Amino acid sequence: MAKVLVPLAEGFEEIEAVNLINIMRRGGIEVDIAYLGGDFANDLVVGANGITIQANIDINICSSYDYDMIVLPGGSGGTNRLAQSEKVQSLLKEFKANDLWIGAICAAPLALHKAGVLNHNYTCYPSVEEQIRFDGYTKEQKVVIDGKVMTSRGPATAICFGLEIVKILVGVETYDMVKNKTLSDFC
Amino acid sequence: MAKVLVPLAEGFEEIEAVNLINIMRRGGIEVDIAYLGGDFANDLVVGANGITIQANIDINICSSYDYDMIVLPGGSGGTNRLAQSEKVQSLLKEFKANDLWIGAICAAPLALHKAGVLNHNYTCYPSVEEQIRFDGYTKEQKVVIDGKVMTSRGPATAICFGLEIVKILVGVETYDMVKNKTLSDFC
Repeated sequence: MAKVLVPLAEGFEEIEAVNLINIMRRGGIEVDIAYLGGDFANDLVVGANGITIQANIDINICSSYDYDMIVLPGGSGGTNRLAQSEKVQSLLKEFKANDLWIGAICAAPLALHKAGVLNHNYTCYPSVEEQIRFDGYTKEQKVVIDGKVMTSRGPATAICFGLEIVKILVGVETYDMVKNKTLSDFC
Repeated sequence: MAKVLVPLAEGFEEIEAVNLINIMRRGGIEVDIAYLGGDFANDLVVGANGITIQANIDINICSSYDYDMIVLPGGSGGTNRLAQSEKVQSLLKEFKANDLWIGAICAAPLALHKAGVLNHNYTCYPSVEEQIRFDGYTKEQKVVIDGKVMTSRGPATAICFGLEIVKILVGVETYDMVKNKTLSDFC
């Protein structure tokens, strides 16, 4: 069974986090939801619009060896905290070094860029590319895959992003099944 | 400021609940997330795919006089619990009697039907119409509005449903702003 790590930091975009986790679990992927821990460790993490979600693991005990992929939800507050977290930054480098999958949506590709793990072709939330780079950026696709790095644009592309992850980590039949069950014709 | 009540029962569909709450709050609507309370009262409510969300109010202290609308997320387990809850059923009748807005998505129109508050034209998750009625059912629209009852189809239509609620309770300019910010071109 494929296993994915989703770190949540205060100010995460709730649609992105929940749609990704939900779609991946519907596809049979085991998903760990990690809180950042440290001095203010709390498994209840509050998102950008005041929706609080319960995480199930402290990121400080997470290692890349237990996962196939790490995926970061966006939201500017959440992304800044993920970009500033030494643990998240070192995990991203570990996933890259071990040739594992890495994903980010909305503002979160910025956290990949900061860790030096973003590949050439990517997408992100409109205008965030100004803080990353124009070269390699596209706004024409909901999901961009370059090597083992997947990126997506924002809340309304999160279901499609989750489906692409299911297609890669599980298979196209499961992708079709989850797409049909969730009525995601637009992906 | 418009105010909406979203009751969450164990087994609720997480994409539907979170997308609705997020979009409504982005539109400036105050949203109360209610847990069912009773013997097993717990403000942490677990959804159909194991995602736990924190509610902020016990449904037993909620009255229709404090709200403009009640909206029910789907998920078959959550819907069954909402349909079986005397408090939710009596609230639905109160909202109807007081000419307030009522909404439901996915399997949840069944809970409206059970309370006798579903208007003639409606939509729901495919095949749930077999448990409601064929007359008045359509699968051609993401969101159906008949009088003050709004219905929608499933996870991938939840953003569009939230946007329609924003259009009605707040206005078309805010609808356009939230639609653009969330990249919801498909609505």
